[in-house]
Amino acid sequence: MNENNNYNNMIEENTTENNNRSDTVKKRINELRIFMSEKNIDVYYIPTDDFHGSEFVSEYFKAREYMSGFTGSAGTLIITKDSAGLFTDGRYFLQAEKELENTDIVLYRMGNEGVPSIVEFLDANMENGMVLAFDGRCVTAGFAISVKKYFEEKGKDISLKGDVDLVSYIWKDRPALPDSKPYVLDEKYCGESLSEKIDRVRKEMKNKNAKSFILTSLDDIAWLLNIRGDDIKCSPLVLSNMLITEDKAVFYCGSDKKPDEKTQNIYDYLHSNKIQIKGYFEIYDDIKKIGNTLPVIADLDKVNFRLYSEILNTVNQCYDTLTDKKIRDGFISYHYAIIDIINPTTNFKAVKNSIEIENEKNAHIKDAVAYVRFLYWFKKKCDKKSITEQDIAKKLLEERKKMDGFISESFEPIVAYKEHGAIVHYSFDEYSNAHLDEKSFVLIDTGGHYLEGTTDITRTLSCGELSSEEKINYTLVLKGNLALGSAVFLEGITGAGLDILARRPLWEKSLDYKHGTGHGVGYLLNVHEGPNSIRYRLGEGKNVSAVMKPGMITSNEPGLYITGKYGIRIENMIVCKEKLKNDFGRFLEFETLTMVPYELDAIEEELLDSTEKRFINEYHSKVYKTLKSFLNEEEQIFLSEITRTI
Amino acid sequence: MNENNNYNNMIEENTTENNNRSDTVKKRINELRIFMSEKNIDVYYIPTDDFHGSEFVSEYFKAREYMSGFTGSAGTLIITKDSAGLFTDGRYFLQAEKELENTDIVLYRMGNEGVPSIVEFLDANMENGMVLAFDGRCVTAGFAISVKKYFEEKGKDISLKGDVDLVSYIWKDRPALPDSKPYVLDEKYCGESLSEKIDRVRKEMKNKNAKSFILTSLDDIAWLLNIRGDDIKCSPLVLSNMLITEDKAVFYCGSDKKPDEKTQNIYDYLHSNKIQIKGYFEIYDDIKKIGNTLPVIADLDKVNFRLYSEILNTVNQCYDTLTDKKIRDGFISYHYAIIDIINPTTNFKAVKNSIEIENEKNAHIKDAVAYVRFLYWFKKKCDKKSITEQDIAKKLLEERKKMDGFISESFEPIVAYKEHGAIVHYSFDEYSNAHLDEKSFVLIDTGGHYLEGTTDITRTLSCGELSSEEKINYTLVLKGNLALGSAVFLEGITGAGLDILARRPLWEKSLDYKHGTGHGVGYLLNVHEGPNSIRYRLGEGKNVSAVMKPGMITSNEPGLYITGKYGIRIENMIVCKEKLKNDFGRFLEFETLTMVPYELDAIEEELLDSTEKRFINEYHSKVYKTLKSFLNEEEQIFLSEITRTI
Repeated sequence: MNENNNYNNMIEENTTENNNRSDTVKKRINELRIFMSEKNIDVYYIPTDDFHGSEFVSEYFKAREYMSGFTGSAGTLIITKDSAGLFTDGRYFLQAEKELENTDIVLYRMGNEGVPSIVEFLDANMENGMVLAFDGRCVTAGFAISVKKYFEEKGKDISLKGDVDLVSYIWKDRPALPDSKPYVLDEKYCGESLSEKIDRVRKEMKNKNAKSFILTSLDDIAWLLNIRGDDIKCSPLVLSNMLITEDKAVFYCGSDKKPDEKTQNIYDYLHSNKIQIKGYFEIYDDIKKIGNTLPVIADLDKVNFRLYSEILNTVNQCYDTLTDKKIRDGFISYHYAIIDIINPTTNFKAVKNSIEIENEKNAHIKDAVAYVRFLYWFKKKCDKKSITEQDIAKKLLEERKKMDGFISESFEPIVAYKEHGAIVHYSFDEYSNAHLDEKSFVLIDTGGHYLEGTTDITRTLSCGELSSEEKINYTLVLKGNLALGSAVFLEGITGAGLDILARRPLWEKSLDYKHGTGHGVGYLLNVHEGPNSIRYRLGEGKNVSAVMKPGMITSNEPGLYITGKYGIRIENMIVCKEKLKNDFGRFLEFETLTMVPYELDAIEEELLDSTEKRFINEYHSKVYKTLKSFLNEEEQIFLSEITRTI
Repeated sequence: MNENNNYNNMIEENTTENNNRSDTVKKRINELRIFMSEKNIDVYYIPTDDFHGSEFVSEYFKAREYMSGFTGSAGTLIITKDSAGLFTDGRYFLQAEKELENTDIVLYRMGNEGVPSIVEFLDANMENGMVLAFDGRCVTAGFAISVKKYFEEKGKDISLKGDVDLVSYIWKDRPALPDSKPYVLDEKYCGESLSEKIDRVRKEMKNKNAKSFILTSLDDIAWLLNIRGDDIKCSPLVLSNMLITEDKAVFYCGSDKKPDEKTQNIYDYLHSNKIQIKGYFEIYDDIKKIGNTLPVIADLDKVNFRLYSEILNTVNQCYDTLTDKKIRDGFISYHYAIIDIINPTTNFKAVKNSIEIENEKNAHIKDAVAYVRFLYWFKKKCDKKSITEQDIAKKLLEERKKMDGFISESFEPIVAYKEHGAIVHYSFDEYSNAHLDEKSFVLIDTGGHYLEGTTDITRTLSCGELSSEEKINYTLVLKGNLALGSAVFLEGITGAGLDILARRPLWEKSLDYKHGTGHGVGYLLNVHEGPNSIRYRLGEGKNVSAVMKPGMITSNEPGLYITGKYGIRIENMIVCKEKLKNDFGRFLEFETLTMVPYELDAIEEELLDSTEKRFINEYHSKVYKTLKSFLNEEEQIFLSEITRTI
């Protein structure tokens, strides 16, 4: 799955409702303005985020949707005293136009020429001395700091106020916070006990001279505690926070009531591992005592602004003894109060242990068996003209559900026929859901969570007749996928150093794709995780580009998108492993986890050299041998056809 | 030229002198210890650096050599109350052993297993409360900060004292500071006037909200003022500093005496461009007034520790109003007093203008004509068995000197026959200078400064018979050189993203070379300059890896070193330029400036694919066409042979 993607909610269209909606939206915004005025707030900012910067959010957090009527999964609403603007990206322009009709909210089409960025919009709407407010729990500290810095560099004095949630005053029937029952993930799946993981975390805290560690990213918490839940769609996570010191670890979760029969088990498990349990919101009080355990590790790209502000207040109280980079004795002192590094858990979690890797291999075999059965249906059984994009997604889910240990889809499926494939972030909905035809490509990006791991696979299938251009372009993308998948490299290289392998066949033809080539994939966690990624542009500071390490699982997904015609993407999951050590160093390589054939019908063989053909044939032969025994005779014959030697 | 290389000075061997020397060294170190004791210094640190972090240093700065008797060009001497250690790298182990004999100085062979690093040595020899001293002008601020940080993280309180130059108390007949006569480089060579350059610098200062800019790197100053000098071997630079504010620019140089006939010209030129001239050391007083023009841009990897300390003192005086990242109103304030970024001039200078690029092309044609004449002599005229490595260097210099506009070698030549080629940083000297034979490789890394630019080229030549292994390895290195030289890439990629192209053919065979693939090359300035480089490992902070921009000139020098047998390196200079722009972005490519044939006698043709052969043939055909008219008939015939189609 391409990591820039988020997903639509289905839109319930109803004309009367639509008219009512615009009135309701106007009313709500006016109500909000009254509260803004009462609290001397000039601009109110409503993002689409939970308190943890999660990729998907549950119903409770849809304040932006409640206030604007716009139901898309990504967007930011900004309300000033006399105007309101909604910022969203290309996949939602049409939907937002429809849903914002008559609301007086101006749509800002992000990425279009002449459209201001969010900070530019704030800059244009805010004068010296004004107050910008938001629910500081829905904004990362990093984002707030960047806004503050932007204004400071412009010499503009803007106050940020993050301790208000104005929407909660208006939203009377707000859904409850999610509160699923967490479960323990057995060590035969996760491969390392909670206590071993906590030990590693404390060792790393010591290495960094930290006395505490605030952990708020949900996948990191689930990894650390070896628990999973169902608080967020497509992400088997538990809404929670953690505070870890040298001798205490507190888990702040929703279940601060008396445990019932089902949760007793996990309470016992956590207690036996010396994890204290407190209510979800109690961290906001406890953080005020962080002054006793400074310095604190706080990943400011993850920790929300409210928590960060509390930490800063505490630091200010200790200002004379301990400051954030204080000048002392003519030197800049490096005793930091706040150690802003990537969460140590994030780095640990990215490197899968040998049990996780073995499990992932099995999960990918299961996923491939389901996929081959889907392919058999798609290639041999269905009538292309009578099926839609949605039918494909349904069939794939149906096959996956049959597999033992399947839990859920790992993200909302992308099925994009023909020109839809070229739309960045496309996902079908009621309006767009297209019928197929016996020509061109359908791009299918889907994945599943299993107890044995998480899959994320894109295949671009021929629906029948393909033009020579389509075949050439498929083959160029394939060449990039093969080059990256078969790369050999020395330890120490980052994802930024590997990307050119995947892009080179396209770049040589002056073509490109506007997304990363690879993202880390969690083990029954988020389908997108860091720090590993494969993208040639460097990030900033601590997010520059991670060194590729043995055990990291990353996607390998070059693509090509021809506007108005079709999209191509070929995505495998690859695991980094040692190839050999010698006097020159430690050489690494990838092993492809995904076990689904490439689309031979789309290959222009003349463009492949003998090495590339050998890679394809070896891969297909491995796929056939691995999957054969799980398939019936018809399916086996089909698989042998689509993995034939070229 | 491989950027890890420095060069030997010739050693005058004399047994009596050697005995005297060890006594002299002991005496000097004892004298120094008396001063250390007087000033309460526990450890005294003597690097091999001038006040500007230059790659080569002039006689005045050879304090380490004076104190230790070790004449190598790289090394650090550390003196404690009862011991002394000299740290140097592999190319000097033998020489240092000889020269340190009987001096009581312990040799630390850097890079060898079990040998401590310099900070580890300091750590082992320093206790809480001790004082580490050095001439703070010979140490960059960045280095001193890193040492301080190392000790702070260990919880050790070590004071750094940078305001003493103890060696000057002892070194009575110390040579004078270099004081060559600078000259103006005409705009037909440098392509942009001083006033245009200063305007660009001031614009960038404004962008960064800086009120002043301290510039101490000599190549940046020479570039900015369009002047050149001869203060440092192989580097046509002028010993100087600069302080630039919004309305003033001061050039601190050695010539603070009355200008004579020869310097009058440059004084007039600078004055007419509103550049004020002051004495070289006056900056140390003027910097004390920097408080009036904060924030100041100071590249702490370039500015020396003494100057940095003065800036910090001033900042401390303004502490209440303006601090280095002060916490204010609960926010970290981003008003920096010291803006530690790569010198803006470094980034400007790296992107050559069109006149410089045209000139560089001409310089490379001249260099190639000289080189082909040398090759003709080497391949057709000389008796391999009767020549040495040094003879090759001499012959090359002789041919280069014949070319119009030649100024000097751009670094000390490396000529390394057979197993010498595999020694990292090898350079011949009286001891090692080898005779050739009619087999294996000689690696030749040389370059020249011309008014029209600077060259840096490595060719690995067959001396006669080559083994199959030698040919295979030459061809692997060549494949990397071709892949990088013919790369097509999107704007935004860094050198770290390109490196794998050069290394891939080696990595696939589990081989590698332990140096960067490319470094920036100055225009009649330093042969090594930043920020552009091609190396897969990322640097830290501001030095992470520069984006490759059109106009940047970089070396392309993969290699392979087989210990005890031979070394291979193939180095061209390449300039980045635009290929085309389309909807996918701006595509860039390289053009090879170097115009000297590859070694066809060393190529294993079977390892090359048709594209690679085409690149070689096209390059050789271009070389022949470009150089032909400058050569006599015999030389032309020779050139046609060594550029024959394969």
